Amino acid sequence: MGINKQQKRADTGAELHLFARKLFPICRSITGNGIRETVSLIGERIPLKIFELPTGTQVLDWTVPKEWNIRDAYIKTPEGKRVVDFQKCNLHVLNYSVPIHAKMPLSELKPHLFTIPENPDWIPYRTSYYKENWGFCLTHNQMLGLKEEEYEVCVDSSLENGQLTYAECFLPGKSTEEVLISCHVCHPSLANDNLSGLSVATFLAQLLSGRELRYSYRFLFIPGTIGTIAWLAKNRETCKRIRHGLVLTCIGDRGFFHYKKSRQEIAEVDRVVEHVLKHTDPSATILPFSPYGYDERQYCSPGFNLPVGCLMRSVWGTFPEYHTSADNLEFLDPNSLAESLVVCASVIEVLEKNQRYINLAPFGEPQLGRRGLYPLTGGTAPELELNARLWTLNLSDGHHSLLDIAERSGLPFDRVHAAADLLLRNGLLAPVDTSNS
Amino acid sequence: MGINKQQKRADTGAELHLFARKLFPICRSITGNGIRETVSLIGERIPLKIFELPTGTQVLDWTVPKEWNIRDAYIKTPEGKRVVDFQKCNLHVLNYSVPIHAKMPLSELKPHLFTIPENPDWIPYRTSYYKENWGFCLTHNQMLGLKEEEYEVCVDSSLENGQLTYAECFLPGKSTEEVLISCHVCHPSLANDNLSGLSVATFLAQLLSGRELRYSYRFLFIPGTIGTIAWLAKNRETCKRIRHGLVLTCIGDRGFFHYKKSRQEIAEVDRVVEHVLKHTDPSATILPFSPYGYDERQYCSPGFNLPVGCLMRSVWGTFPEYHTSADNLEFLDPNSLAESLVVCASVIEVLEKNQRYINLAPFGEPQLGRRGLYPLTGGTAPELELNARLWTLNLSDGHHSLLDIAERSGLPFDRVHAAADLLLRNGLLAPVDTSNS
Amino acid sequence: MGINKQQKRADTGAELHLFARKLFPICRSITGNGIRETVSLIGERIPLKIFELPTGTQVLDWTVPKEWNIRDAYIKTPEGKRVVDFQKCNLHVLNYSVPIHAKMPLSELKPHLFTIPENPDWIPYRTSYYKENWGFCLTHNQMLGLKEEEYEVCVDSSLENGQLTYAECFLPGKSTEEVLISCHVCHPSLANDNLSGLSVATFLAQLLSGRELRYSYRFLFIPGTIGTIAWLAKNRETCKRIRHGLVLTCIGDRGFFHYKKSRQEIAEVDRVVEHVLKHTDPSATILPFSPYGYDERQYCSPGFNLPVGCLMRSVWGTFPEYHTSADNLEFLDPNSLAESLVVCASVIEVLEKNQRYINLAPFGEPQLGRRGLYPLTGGTAPELELNARLWTLNLSDGHHSLLDIAERSGLPFDRVHAAADLLLRNGLLAPVDTSNS
Repeated sequence: MGINKQQKRADTGAELHLFARKLFPICRSITGNGIRETVSLIGERIPLKIFELPTGTQVLDWTVPKEWNIRDAYIKTPEGKRVVDFQKCNLHVLNYSVPIHAKMPLSELKPHLFTIPENPDWIPYRTSYYKENWGFCLTHNQMLGLKEEEYEVCVDSSLENGQLTYAECFLPGKSTEEVLISCHVCHPSLANDNLSGLSVATFLAQLLSGRELRYSYRFLFIPGTIGTIAWLAKNRETCKRIRHGLVLTCIGDRGFFHYKKSRQEIAEVDRVVEHVLKHTDPSATILPFSPYGYDERQYCSPGFNLPVGCLMRSVWGTFPEYHTSADNLEFLDPNSLAESLVVCASVIEVLEKNQRYINLAPFGEPQLGRRGLYPLTGGTAPELELNARLWTLNLSDGHHSLLDIAERSGLPFDRVHAAADLLLRNGLLAPVDTSNS
Repeated sequence: MGINKQQKRADTGAELHLFARKLFPICRSITGNGIRETVSLIGERIPLKIFELPTGTQVLDWTVPKEWNIRDAYIKTPEGKRVVDFQKCNLHVLNYSVPIHAKMPLSELKPHLFTIPENPDWIPYRTSYYKENWGFCLTHNQMLGLKEEEYEVCVDSSLENGQLTYAECFLPGKSTEEVLISCHVCHPSLANDNLSGLSVATFLAQLLSGRELRYSYRFLFIPGTIGTIAWLAKNRETCKRIRHGLVLTCIGDRGFFHYKKSRQEIAEVDRVVEHVLKHTDPSATILPFSPYGYDERQYCSPGFNLPVGCLMRSVWGTFPEYHTSADNLEFLDPNSLAESLVVCASVIEVLEKNQRYINLAPFGEPQLGRRGLYPLTGGTAPELELNARLWTLNLSDGHHSLLDIAERSGLPFDRVHAAADLLLRNGLLAPVDTSNS
Repeated sequence: MGINKQQKRADTGAELHLFARKLFPICRSITGNGIRETVSLIGERIPLKIFELPTGTQVLDWTVPKEWNIRDAYIKTPEGKRVVDFQKCNLHVLNYSVPIHAKMPLSELKPHLFTIPENPDWIPYRTSYYKENWGFCLTHNQMLGLKEEEYEVCVDSSLENGQLTYAECFLPGKSTEEVLISCHVCHPSLANDNLSGLSVATFLAQLLSGRELRYSYRFLFIPGTIGTIAWLAKNRETCKRIRHGLVLTCIGDRGFFHYKKSRQEIAEVDRVVEHVLKHTDPSATILPFSPYGYDERQYCSPGFNLPVGCLMRSVWGTFPEYHTSADNLEFLDPNSLAESLVVCASVIEVLEKNQRYINLAPFGEPQLGRRGLYPLTGGTAPELELNARLWTLNLSDGHHSLLDIAERSGLPFDRVHAAADLLLRNGLLAPVDTSNS
């Protein structure tokens, strides 16, 4: 990688990290003002349409829940000292806690406290969306410091009829066929598991916006599970037009790439991501589909069975910082964010350019030398460019896509595409129209 | 495995071994009273129907041979001492020997003697069903002790028109589709290669009898090759109803399990046995089909091509005791017998329960929490039960069987079945009727 | 291998090498008298039809070029000494050099000189068929010896309207379906890369000629690329009858065998060569198809897509002698040539004999003992012959070819064929007629 490219990547990484930093303090949940603030900041960068669905709306097998908002929460000692304080870190409150204001001894409080004994200085992230409950998350050391006395416990939240909020950025292309990019926006101050995905998605939409595109692109910034369920319920027709999709999550840490395949496992997006990663990160791992994880669970439910995979760096649950206060801005690596953006852009590049062509001189090899496409002194081995030309000519029979050719030849896609482009300009190839296939 | 389960298995093993011990002394062959006695003892435990076909009956490409019976056989020295004595071990006579009573010098006797020089204390097992001959099998040391003198040689047998005997135990189930369990009953005092299979088959039929079954079960206790050929000739219509089948043989020794696939190699029974063994015995080996072996040779002949595999522990011919007097009751291990019975019962359990279901809420994940099927505090990894539920919901599209789901998820079948059962009771799944498929 | 067989192979190897030695000095190119002389020598051994196409003929995307002939070429010092001399080695001239006779200083000469600095005593082989140019190939040491003085430079060649020459040997068989054997004859004094292929092809045609054959055989002795292009252009109907094909090249060196699959990669010839090599040379390597190489490039172009693979020992470009004066008669190994001929003959043997049969007694095993095809004393393991019989009976269902049976059983083809032949003679098999398939 050249110095310029390296500097550009460093700049992009810094910008991505800055954007995440801006979003970090907001207390997001699956509903409420946290999401509104978040998508409003995203909307400053890309064209965004905000949707709200009222509490009680039936969406597939689910119902839109009450809207949750929170102003403050704390545990106070008899001396009035806040020993647990939502103002210091929004993870301290069990997400979706119902309001409470009461005094109680430690014994009564304890069942409502969550800690991580193995990492006694980290605050866990816990939620209780569908069972009304209240609680606090704190470091294990904090809990050990609590004396047997009476505490003032306050969660100043509201759980009331309201709205479920999500946002879409739609970039129209030549075709009505769509590529879906989805990320969840419902986690509070967690960096890798939330902000990495939505930052990269935002920047990716910025990159694509204004470009002439083959596919139309739909970016979803959406609360996990219920948001996606709601979107699917309201967009059955759109779903039929989705040809490829990616869920982006945990793509800002320093780990190697992981790609979890769609339920179809041989979808074009599965092959494209695998191809791009093979030529980008030799340590990348391809994982089979499984029905647990992020919102690919919903897109890949059997009724929809969309070709949507999930791109990650470290896999959720495999790094100790996952769902704790240690998943913070330091855990987020600017260079990793930038690299993830490059991978996403490369995937889209391949999707955009992956077409089938037909060799117009398929009987024998066309005389490339006459066209300046072949070395004129014979007797030496062919260089990579010639190799790409020969492979492209040989396999362009209307059945093989450029990705098929790249995979069979072992050449990177961009080399094969460059060869196809050159052969096209020399009248040796014609594209096979697949726009309505 | 709990203490109770261990004790129960030890009891079963002892019982199986006792049954084999009872059958051990009988001089069986492919016809004759040895088989009649054997199936009569089996009939004390399970409902059995005995069939006899007269000598000369045309069965496929074969003819039912004359019936062979034997009362006594010996080689006597001039002093009247029996140096080889059928009364001590029925392996001493070449099975199907024609009668002879004569005096002859050692040189004339020798071509009729069979030994195993590598194992000079073991008696080999040899047969001559289709070429009239007489002979003796003896230890190599016995033969070395024979002096150059005249011997009295006697085989007091008969080879006359009679019957070919075999027995069936039929257990009707809801469906007329059948599972075939077949074992040969034509070997004399050999324990693993004969008694192990028929003991386990008998006990398995006992286990199933009286139970409500999906499939009908047909257990064959039958002379090898000619018996199976005869059965196939007489049961062409029944063959069309066989959906799965197993030949049981050599499953009482201390070796690891081996399963030889059916000729189809991807039959459901092949996949089921492989699945059960993978979760039972990590040292189990799956062998490809080959046309030599036991009666799967006949079931898997190209005209029938039935989905019948062969379950073994040690493979015939690979252990030195095979077809010798060392394949005796000590070679037979009670615990191995019990474990083999458990594997057979597990295979049948999977066959009985392997169905396809359809997810009744296939669009997105159904809200499991509402139904008490999902942990209520979010943020932690799912346990195996939840995983099984999600896999079952995700793949229950009418195309995947529970076995497909178990294989793709890596979960053991019983966990997947338990999940399906729970989801069924919660109205989230419906069975796909395949009874007449 | 027995002594006789070894001696016979040594004799054949010596004969093959002698033939190559005879052809070695001729200065071949893609047109001209070198090819005419070469095919005339081949024609002394096998029936050959010579074809000539005039300069300017349109063949597919190409045009037949002018005919090139050469009488002499040299570089002379002012003292009249030939420092580079075509009479010593015909590689010294850039193949297809236009005529020149001029005096010039070293500086002007240098751009026309080709050497191999890494192997300073070898002369490279270079061509310039489609760009008019002149040049000399010499050893690097020769070039280092050239002083800064004026040289007399002469290429006494002609490049004029004429003919493109190639030859065919056609051996008719029972079927009009054809096997194509193709080798290039356009390289001058290069042994492995040219003479090995054409010698083995010639001897192979000799072996087959006069034999009763299932397929018709067409041997092409043809200039690389343009010759094959021309042949394909003129033989579109013949192409439709080609069922199997092999390009033979570089099969006389001491390396292990390599077989490059046809574009189809699962063509019968691909499977047959792989089978024969597996049982001949455990170090043989099967290579995937690639669109660079020898004339399989043309046969496997997408418009024709013929089942033609390429049999080699060492692969072009991977041995340093390739396309240099070191690819000489010493590099050619008589024993390797003979072994290559044996492999080719074995491949043809399998192609000729690879048929499908149907078991006429498919229900159960036929009683082989009655027919003397089964050991009569039971109880021991089957030998290979019996195994081959059982496999052949079991899989002869009209779908499996003998090659399928050989591959599934792991037995060598000739054993399976021998079994099929025996079963056929015993009325247990019938051939499935595929002559017009």
